[in-house]
Amino acid sequence: MDKQTLHRLLSEVREGACTVEKAVQTLKDFPSEQLDHTCIDHHRTIRTGIPEVVYGESKSSAQIRDICRAMLHKSAPVLVTRVDSQKADDITRDLPQMTYNPEARVLYHHVKSTRDKEQGGTILIICAGTSDIPVAEEAFLTADCFGNRVEKLYDVGVAGLHRLLSRQKMLHEATVIIVVAGMEGALPSVVAGLVSCPVVAVPTSVGYGASFNGIAALLGMLNSCAPGVAVVNIDNGFGAACMADAIIRTG
Amino acid sequence: MDKQTLHRLLSEVREGACTVEKAVQTLKDFPSEQLDHTCIDHHRTIRTGIPEVVYGESKSSAQIRDICRAMLHKSAPVLVTRVDSQKADDITRDLPQMTYNPEARVLYHHVKSTRDKEQGGTILIICAGTSDIPVAEEAFLTADCFGNRVEKLYDVGVAGLHRLLSRQKMLHEATVIIVVAGMEGALPSVVAGLVSCPVVAVPTSVGYGASFNGIAALLGMLNSCAPGVAVVNIDNGFGAACMADAIIRTG
Amino acid sequence: MDKQTLHRLLSEVREGACTVEKAVQTLKDFPSEQLDHTCIDHHRTIRTGIPEVVYGESKSSAQIRDICRAMLHKSAPVLVTRVDSQKADDITRDLPQMTYNPEARVLYHHVKSTRDKEQGGTILIICAGTSDIPVAEEAFLTADCFGNRVEKLYDVGVAGLHRLLSRQKMLHEATVIIVVAGMEGALPSVVAGLVSCPVVAVPTSVGYGASFNGIAALLGMLNSCAPGVAVVNIDNGFGAACMADAIIRTG
Amino acid sequence: MDKQTLHRLLSEVREGACTVEKAVQTLKDFPSEQLDHTCIDHHRTIRTGIPEVVYGESKSSAQIRDICRAMLHKSAPVLVTRVDSQKADDITRDLPQMTYNPEARVLYHHVKSTRDKEQGGTILIICAGTSDIPVAEEAFLTADCFGNRVEKLYDVGVAGLHRLLSRQKMLHEATVIIVVAGMEGALPSVVAGLVSCPVVAVPTSVGYGASFNGIAALLGMLNSCAPGVAVVNIDNGFGAACMADAIIRTG
Amino acid sequence: MDKQTLHRLLSEVREGACTVEKAVQTLKDFPSEQLDHTCIDHHRTIRTGIPEVVYGESKSSAQIRDICRAMLHKSAPVLVTRVDSQKADDITRDLPQMTYNPEARVLYHHVKSTRDKEQGGTILIICAGTSDIPVAEEAFLTADCFGNRVEKLYDVGVAGLHRLLSRQKMLHEATVIIVVAGMEGALPSVVAGLVSCPVVAVPTSVGYGASFNGIAALLGMLNSCAPGVAVVNIDNGFGAACMADAIIRTG
Amino acid sequence: MDKQTLHRLLSEVREGACTVEKAVQTLKDFPSEQLDHTCIDHHRTIRTGIPEVVYGESKSSAQIRDICRAMLHKSAPVLVTRVDSQKADDITRDLPQMTYNPEARVLYHHVKSTRDKEQGGTILIICAGTSDIPVAEEAFLTADCFGNRVEKLYDVGVAGLHRLLSRQKMLHEATVIIVVAGMEGALPSVVAGLVSCPVVAVPTSVGYGASFNGIAALLGMLNSCAPGVAVVNIDNGFGAACMADAIIRTG
Amino acid sequence: MDKQTLHRLLSEVREGACTVEKAVQTLKDFPSEQLDHTCIDHHRTIRTGIPEVVYGESKSSAQIRDICRAMLHKSAPVLVTRVDSQKADDITRDLPQMTYNPEARVLYHHVKSTRDKEQGGTILIICAGTSDIPVAEEAFLTADCFGNRVEKLYDVGVAGLHRLLSRQKMLHEATVIIVVAGMEGALPSVVAGLVSCPVVAVPTSVGYGASFNGIAALLGMLNSCAPGVAVVNIDNGFGAACMADAIIRTG
Amino acid sequence: MDKQTLHRLLSEVREGACTVEKAVQTLKDFPSEQLDHTCIDHHRTIRTGIPEVVYGESKSSAQIRDICRAMLHKSAPVLVTRVDSQKADDITRDLPQMTYNPEARVLYHHVKSTRDKEQGGTILIICAGTSDIPVAEEAFLTADCFGNRVEKLYDVGVAGLHRLLSRQKMLHEATVIIVVAGMEGALPSVVAGLVSCPVVAVPTSVGYGASFNGIAALLGMLNSCAPGVAVVNIDNGFGAACMADAIIRTG
Repeated sequence: MDKQTLHRLLSEVREGACTVEKAVQTLKDFPSEQLDHTCIDHHRTIRTGIPEVVYGESKSSAQIRDICRAMLHKSAPVLVTRVDSQKADDITRDLPQMTYNPEARVLYHHVKSTRDKEQGGTILIICAGTSDIPVAEEAFLTADCFGNRVEKLYDVGVAGLHRLLSRQKMLHEATVIIVVAGMEGALPSVVAGLVSCPVVAVPTSVGYGASFNGIAALLGMLNSCAPGVAVVNIDNGFGAACMADAIIRTG
Repeated sequence: MDKQTLHRLLSEVREGACTVEKAVQTLKDFPSEQLDHTCIDHHRTIRTGIPEVVYGESKSSAQIRDICRAMLHKSAPVLVTRVDSQKADDITRDLPQMTYNPEARVLYHHVKSTRDKEQGGTILIICAGTSDIPVAEEAFLTADCFGNRVEKLYDVGVAGLHRLLSRQKMLHEATVIIVVAGMEGALPSVVAGLVSCPVVAVPTSVGYGASFNGIAALLGMLNSCAPGVAVVNIDNGFGAACMADAIIRTG
Repeated sequence: MDKQTLHRLLSEVREGACTVEKAVQTLKDFPSEQLDHTCIDHHRTIRTGIPEVVYGESKSSAQIRDICRAMLHKSAPVLVTRVDSQKADDITRDLPQMTYNPEARVLYHHVKSTRDKEQGGTILIICAGTSDIPVAEEAFLTADCFGNRVEKLYDVGVAGLHRLLSRQKMLHEATVIIVVAGMEGALPSVVAGLVSCPVVAVPTSVGYGASFNGIAALLGMLNSCAPGVAVVNIDNGFGAACMADAIIRTG
Repeated sequence: MDKQTLHRLLSEVREGACTVEKAVQTLKDFPSEQLDHTCIDHHRTIRTGIPEVVYGESKSSAQIRDICRAMLHKSAPVLVTRVDSQKADDITRDLPQMTYNPEARVLYHHVKSTRDKEQGGTILIICAGTSDIPVAEEAFLTADCFGNRVEKLYDVGVAGLHRLLSRQKMLHEATVIIVVAGMEGALPSVVAGLVSCPVVAVPTSVGYGASFNGIAALLGMLNSCAPGVAVVNIDNGFGAACMADAIIRTG
Repeated sequence: MDKQTLHRLLSEVREGACTVEKAVQTLKDFPSEQLDHTCIDHHRTIRTGIPEVVYGESKSSAQIRDICRAMLHKSAPVLVTRVDSQKADDITRDLPQMTYNPEARVLYHHVKSTRDKEQGGTILIICAGTSDIPVAEEAFLTADCFGNRVEKLYDVGVAGLHRLLSRQKMLHEATVIIVVAGMEGALPSVVAGLVSCPVVAVPTSVGYGASFNGIAALLGMLNSCAPGVAVVNIDNGFGAACMADAIIRTG
Repeated sequence: MDKQTLHRLLSEVREGACTVEKAVQTLKDFPSEQLDHTCIDHHRTIRTGIPEVVYGESKSSAQIRDICRAMLHKSAPVLVTRVDSQKADDITRDLPQMTYNPEARVLYHHVKSTRDKEQGGTILIICAGTSDIPVAEEAFLTADCFGNRVEKLYDVGVAGLHRLLSRQKMLHEATVIIVVAGMEGALPSVVAGLVSCPVVAVPTSVGYGASFNGIAALLGMLNSCAPGVAVVNIDNGFGAACMADAIIRTG
Repeated sequence: MDKQTLHRLLSEVREGACTVEKAVQTLKDFPSEQLDHTCIDHHRTIRTGIPEVVYGESKSSAQIRDICRAMLHKSAPVLVTRVDSQKADDITRDLPQMTYNPEARVLYHHVKSTRDKEQGGTILIICAGTSDIPVAEEAFLTADCFGNRVEKLYDVGVAGLHRLLSRQKMLHEATVIIVVAGMEGALPSVVAGLVSCPVVAVPTSVGYGASFNGIAALLGMLNSCAPGVAVVNIDNGFGAACMADAIIRTG
Repeated sequence: MDKQTLHRLLSEVREGACTVEKAVQTLKDFPSEQLDHTCIDHHRTIRTGIPEVVYGESKSSAQIRDICRAMLHKSAPVLVTRVDSQKADDITRDLPQMTYNPEARVLYHHVKSTRDKEQGGTILIICAGTSDIPVAEEAFLTADCFGNRVEKLYDVGVAGLHRLLSRQKMLHEATVIIVVAGMEGALPSVVAGLVSCPVVAVPTSVGYGASFNGIAALLGMLNSCAPGVAVVNIDNGFGAACMADAIIRTG
């Protein structure tokens, strides 16, 4: 439930357009709803601007399904990250209104956003290599689901700079840029040296040996010599999208 | 040299208000000026919105002084981070227009910003404990020097939550929040759970033993369970301010 | 064999209520019984107050079954941690008096405790997210099996503080609190800042990327800025329950 | 201000023994007092049972002195850890009522505790070697200052077990044991295998090479095969004493 | 081929008991024999006293079989470590004279040793817990295969010291002791504090969480406060037996 | 003594131009000369093409002086790395023919190389920032002392790509490029994406926080997505020059 | 497309031997071709001398097949590393002109090199043990595919030095040596101490326990006391071959 | 007090050669003597064959002096490691019978050993470079002080193998070899491949960058591919000597 929806409900109550009983029914799980295993934070959108998103990795199909069902009842947008295809099959069988994106491993249900996409800024998602696409797509789906205008520029790593330099117009038109890269994670530094907008850097676990599952990229990004860069956790496309979304909302 | 200054200069040339010779003189070190030891990037403000800032840690007093002098000649704002008091004494003796802040270890020369502070948003800087203040002050001086409206809320760590919860109004009025914390670095998660604006988290090296000079705080922040948080390097108050400044400039 | 049982046996011998032969039979594997592969420490409860608990991870079904059988013969409570469902099936087929909890991965046989639950204090087990429940449940089953009064408060992580703050009464009534959390592991600091009882913190391996399988949470808890916190190994719900049980027994 | 003091003050107000004005004066910095650089949490004792203790490492002499002075005005017990002798000299010159213990690096002012030492239990502090004494003494002074009965058993490391085994009576009479050890940190496992009370383990940075400033001891203690052990940060004698004190207070 | 065998062969040649042709045949793969994929070091026993032992982990069944066959032709003892049961089945089908021990994961062919077991000393192998037995058995089989007198004392970890202290006679009669332990790895320190013979410590990967697959035990052993301890790699029962064997051979 | 010098000496002996006695005198410390504390490897140039270079960090002034004196007697070029200015003063007082470069911390004595600089290729040394210059200079002095043609391009880090891109001609004319960079260490990837010659990457310890004294840069370089890059130790300008020199000598 | 091919095409256009239309057709995907998921860098050979090689680890069979097909259309040599046998089967079914080497896990299509093998130097690939062969073979296939003369010397680790010392002629005839080793990674130091050519060291993940998947070998090589060594990532046979190839091309 | 001395004393008592009173006086601090700060383990030599040696690093001059004085009173040999020259001056002023070796940082008092040096074996101490000598000397002084025959072979690292190979006779005559090396720590593998006696490896903190203060050498030694090697802590010359001494005593 976002701020506008709550405001409208309460106005309707004051104006008699909604009975107190119906409002109680609507609000009874507010601010949090206790399932057997989970305490859903329906109050989050109002407090933080970001809907509660479910981290699917260590939850069972049944747990995820219960949470989704409870959220769908509230007409909330639903987004579940880190869902493997087996769990996705289990859940969409029961909840066919949910959609699964296997590359991003995201399960979601779009709700038409109350935001005007054209007024807000543009989030540009850049990734260094083909192997980084799953993380970039998790960021894309999250940012899109939150109601943002999002563009993509993929496979433009620093070993072939001309691929990036030839797209500078796209870089300069973005309001915020998410840069996704594994291995040495050098791309955010190069991008941030070319633009004036904020850059959210996402290290990925792509690589082997001394990449240490993304530590090399993470450290590279934290030590970026270019100012205007901040970093999220390894493979955390979702988190980058939340940060970018929060930045767009400041506008 | 920022974009507006360059625009004005070129307009003056077109309108005859400035001779070509004078413009050449002004622009001759543009986009970069080669000192003996350093290649100053005078083009940076136009490209990235952020002036070139000098990292003083591993430079000698003489090197810093030469760079500052070259930058003062261009009427650029000057900011040197990680300057110890001995170097600061050496430099301000030669360049008395520079000011030194010993707590933040920053040496700077303010130039009246071309931005209108009142129109932009507010950067709120929060720190967890008294020991985190030097890093918070580096962030404050940087953000202030770049022309932002900045407020502070210090010593409000999670072990005494009432100190933070009693200041929620301040949190909700901020456009972007910088949270500085050492030890377990839990404060950004708590703050991000309360607000809807972007949070830039700065781990500090405050602590001992298993804090590993800030690694504990860094990891805590990277793993924040609250969305809308991005992280900069340990003790990097400067970097947090650059990110916050870039966010303000998107508005 | 606990202290009271030994005391009673020896009293019976002195009073003639038990023959020496029968006492010898009862005590013959005391203080330790040598199986082929294992030396069971039947003396442990007397020495440390805690029964010997079997760590099942790297033992075969057959080894675990032999140990359980030997312990059941002594009327000891039996608790085996880290047992997967395949091993549990193997063992309960032979030893149907054993019960298996698949979420906690614990196999156990309750023996009515000689303690009076109502007199001792209360252990409260808190966990930050749904994914932390298996570790919390291992703690719950262990503490319960040792004869304690135990309560639970699950899914109350720091990103939505109101869930925790609204349950402060429960926090204040506890004698000792076990706090289970993964990711940044901030919850023990927040809890310890609200209560005056000892807090036993359990980091979990829940998370990804820079959580490094629980290192982030572990370091966060070790660096807690709130006094009155001590930490056990990652995912060690059993160990936390032992510590909590020892604290309850000091009362 | 502890709970009893607050209770008494309010009772006096109700009974007319104290004027409202005087009560206001007493309570005006309650729950927190804002100095220039620090926000003192005078409410902490009531909330957590533990007075606010100052971490002196990264504070200046002047900052510590200001905080001490503010706390002395409230008749609170004062304890400052990690104070070097230079700072101690600076501060005790201005505040001669403060006492400095150079081995433990603790600066303190005792206030007669409202607790009855004889009724509570006993905290036993054990350390493995002479080099661990400073950490053990920090624990001792903290526990003593909080009003506990404390005993010591020093230099009884596992390389000469007879030194420990000959003192088992002392071990068995303790209510809670703090074990301080560096190098391989094996002592807590051995102690916990001998007793039934809770053991709080403190790794120290004593050692060299692969001790990695206490990491070896820390890991050893976290992996203790003996149940009933919980761990605090490296060299954190203060934290161990807080945990032990909280355990004593449950009694 | 060991030193004595070579000496005898050459003596026979000198005395005419062996023709030059036959000696050439025997020696033709000396000092090394080149298979397609492997260069077998038949000279090793003479040079180092230890036969070439095959590390089976990353070799295919076919590679291991070829090497074993070549070594069996030379009447050398054959020992292959880290062989899973699938590979063992493949190989023993072709080479039925080889024996497989599944617990130790060792495949071997005994050759009657030329040493007199009764004259050399005794190697005692101690392990802390049941889970450490596979590593202890790898050490046992290796030492036994090299012709040593070996004894075992298993499941005597430090959490129940009486199990170890009651066997001190066994400890004092050993010439060299191998101590195998996981988790905190404290057992070698305790053993070395009780005996005067050399102690070879083997950390195992037994444990979870902060045991980091044996790092905790490794660090504990490297930092042992008891002199007379040296350490081999994690889970390296083979290496410990080689060191113990070399020590026995100095006698 | 290099290969050509030895060849000439032996030719002179064969032709009678040099007496056997004199040759013996010249060769008597060949292949190695035993000082009290050091065994100088005079044979190294012949074997490896690289003169023995002295690592000065952990040697005393007296030790370095003795080694230098022995090498000067053989007319060998002398190069001592990691010498602080105090040691340099001590040594040059006794051996005035030695020269000290304080920025590179190198002490050296040039001997006219027998190579023809014009025929070999060019080593280009690039560094990312002013703070990396000491390491770059160590590489420069080493390569120069070995008789190579060396050029420099300093302070051209990736945050301002135009500084590098404007010098592409210089990059394309180099035979081998040494790239020195700290912080995120991204420069070698960018350079290797632009050229076809081998790139030797040198991470530096420049940075703070999560640079971990050069680990971030080291990992970045090891994970370079651009082929044709190999890496040497952190701050090892000397080692990079040796590798570059060996590459030049293959030509 | 390499430099010579481009030169010839343009010459043909100038001389009328090729129509502009045909040249456009040939060059239309130059410098990069955008597939759905990948931006192929056809310009790379000209820029860096090394064809674009595909990293197969995290790409699907379909993605790899599309890229290979696009590259085969340009008559480019094709090399895909880190391909498991399942993917190889999928791809070679569609593209039978591709060859798969299961030991090296490389999929490739040779194009007759325009280089004269006899004129360039020789790359010698050495490996320490049988387990290191897969990485050595990846290096072999890469170097061979790029048109180099390559020789091999396998299973000559430092524990049996005579195997290496007896092959010194081979060492001295190489132009550049690639040394592949796991465990302690000591072989590159020993080799570099014997030769004067550049040594490219490749650590492998062969080992267990404290080898930490190749970290021990990597650190050993980075700290080599022998000059003339540079290092690539763990298991990066491909990268070592690229470096060696670049060195050969300097000749 | 070693076993022989105790035996003699008790025999004298039995034979009347010593009064009971005098024996009591001699034995009164046996098995341990409690100083203010230290519990000296006079029983250690009997139990472990190794006298109690004092670790001086973290003890004050006064503490060390008290311990030495107590040990000198018992006619025990005295050995204090890790003593800086300032402490040594303080102590030898009071106890002139103590000798200080500044290179090894050892303070000692020799007592004529009851062992016959000629009958036992020989300990050979090898070190790789001049910078490793202090650690080698600590091992030398310790082994010598314990009554062993000790030889040295210094500065024979693997980068110049001929220095080691030319001394093979010395290697083959040793009973046990201590190998001291920093940087990549490859020397123990090479040595162990050449000899049949046990090798005790000591990594040193010599190196920089990725040597990580001896971790590289430590890991190299733990992963030695040559059997018959065991490892002690970084820079632990003392520990290596204890292990070697224990090995000699098995003979």
